[in-house]
Amino acid sequence: MGVLVVGSVALDSVKTPFGEVRDALGGSATFFSVAAAYFTDVALVAVVGSDFPAEHVEMLRSRGIDVSGLVTETGKTFRWEGVYGYDLNDRETLDTQLNVFESFRPVIPERLAEAEFVFLANIDPELQLSVLEQVTGPRLVACDTMNFWIEGKRSALDELMRRVDIMVMNDAECRMLADEPNLIRAARTVLGMGPKSIVVKKGEHGAVLADSDCFFSAPAFPCEDVFDPTGAGDSFAGGFMGYLAKTGDVTTAGIRRAVIYGTVMASFCVEEFSVDGMTSLSQADIEGRFGMLKDLSHFEAG
Amino acid sequence: MGVLVVGSVALDSVKTPFGEVRDALGGSATFFSVAAAYFTDVALVAVVGSDFPAEHVEMLRSRGIDVSGLVTETGKTFRWEGVYGYDLNDRETLDTQLNVFESFRPVIPERLAEAEFVFLANIDPELQLSVLEQVTGPRLVACDTMNFWIEGKRSALDELMRRVDIMVMNDAECRMLADEPNLIRAARTVLGMGPKSIVVKKGEHGAVLADSDCFFSAPAFPCEDVFDPTGAGDSFAGGFMGYLAKTGDVTTAGIRRAVIYGTVMASFCVEEFSVDGMTSLSQADIEGRFGMLKDLSHFEAG
Repeated sequence: MGVLVVGSVALDSVKTPFGEVRDALGGSATFFSVAAAYFTDVALVAVVGSDFPAEHVEMLRSRGIDVSGLVTETGKTFRWEGVYGYDLNDRETLDTQLNVFESFRPVIPERLAEAEFVFLANIDPELQLSVLEQVTGPRLVACDTMNFWIEGKRSALDELMRRVDIMVMNDAECRMLADEPNLIRAARTVLGMGPKSIVVKKGEHGAVLADSDCFFSAPAFPCEDVFDPTGAGDSFAGGFMGYLAKTGDVTTAGIRRAVIYGTVMASFCVEEFSVDGMTSLSQADIEGRFGMLKDLSHFEAG
Repeated sequence: MGVLVVGSVALDSVKTPFGEVRDALGGSATFFSVAAAYFTDVALVAVVGSDFPAEHVEMLRSRGIDVSGLVTETGKTFRWEGVYGYDLNDRETLDTQLNVFESFRPVIPERLAEAEFVFLANIDPELQLSVLEQVTGPRLVACDTMNFWIEGKRSALDELMRRVDIMVMNDAECRMLADEPNLIRAARTVLGMGPKSIVVKKGEHGAVLADSDCFFSAPAFPCEDVFDPTGAGDSFAGGFMGYLAKTGDVTTAGIRRAVIYGTVMASFCVEEFSVDGMTSLSQADIEGRFGMLKDLSHFEAG
């Protein structure tokens, strides 16, 4: 099996300057899975309520995503509502209803516990740790987190960071975790907390990969039509982990390529609401943007 | 002759979390010249007051910078005072005393008017236009500006943009000039205003070069010891224009390399107060950072 993701499946109501959508398919595990499924086999573990539309499950299944770990509980699905301003960099959360997600205790089906590549999407670090107890020796574990857990569950997060291979986070979270405004120093500080590598997502400014002996600076894809940034980070993680799982190449060169594939998937994600920007891509579309990123970051010594 | 710069020479009082300095050598033409002089012959046109320390003029001259266009007027030198907060991205101007700079009317000495490469540092666009009237057919003109002129001297700036080859500005200025939050769209809009190319400086996020048919995304140098960001943008411009003037290579590949040399010079600038980070570099220091930027942005298709 390729990659296992544990995270949220949600119904998002989003308003941007370009339109709005209500109860659209969202959640970290959703964006991750749809992106990763272009590269490898994907299984997701998450919870939804009894109100969750069957068509969404069918869509995931039709993309080859293993939904055997998607549990339906009595109650309502996790809902998030947010609005983006004109510049799309800042968003305001209008409403968060955890619903069945509040009592989510991930149970990894036995067959999925043997996954070689595991992504712990942004949930309570205690639950992320419980997943590590259930998987049977994955080759590589990557993990996301957010400011809420950095502030509220620091000791669990610290333990988690000692046990994962790659931390994936955004630049504000990296600075916060390290209590250091210089991003390069902050990344080094976070590396000292345990993970072998850290991938710092910087939105329109690209991403940085840091490990003990080198940095990699990945360009952003020059998106002119950012429609809705929701899910960009999870789509990035899906492309990143999907490529690693597909190739099994966890050398520095392989991880650098994975960052670029993550960038490509995030660039498609933001062009539509929900996962719509990622549902009808060809391999040529994906390789085309990979090639564009190669061209636009290329220079030679004189 | 290599490159001519017209801009300010100032005395800066700067406070950062790491120290402070009073009446240190500063100004856009100063940072530009010291950076560019590593690559080519440089002449500066600027004005100082009768209080300007002779040792600074001597330092510039000792670096091979042609100071025959540096005019001394009766009165005090342009002074700027600012303070940087903990994260060094935002600065507060505490005091600006234009002094002799207020009545600066650049006069280009006849010998310097034949310069092949001209940089119009950030001054009143009407004065920048007056420089264009005085030079005799330069091969390439680049130009910086700031929010103050975008708001206050827009029609002169518009005329200027139709007459220069390359606009160099920071990302906030680019968005403001285009009235467009998406930086890629903003860059395209500014290109539509006249210049053949635009270089957008993004500080710790690197730089973007845009022309009519391609984008280039340059990584930032991963500076862990940013001591004082004052002058970084002008040092970038100095490395950029200095390399172009040295090689005469204004192909896309040459301009991309010039952006990297600009990045290198800015990275040295921010490591000390004033121009101190750029006064004792070897060619090996400069080429070393060029090579590091090449390595840290490198990836290959799988």
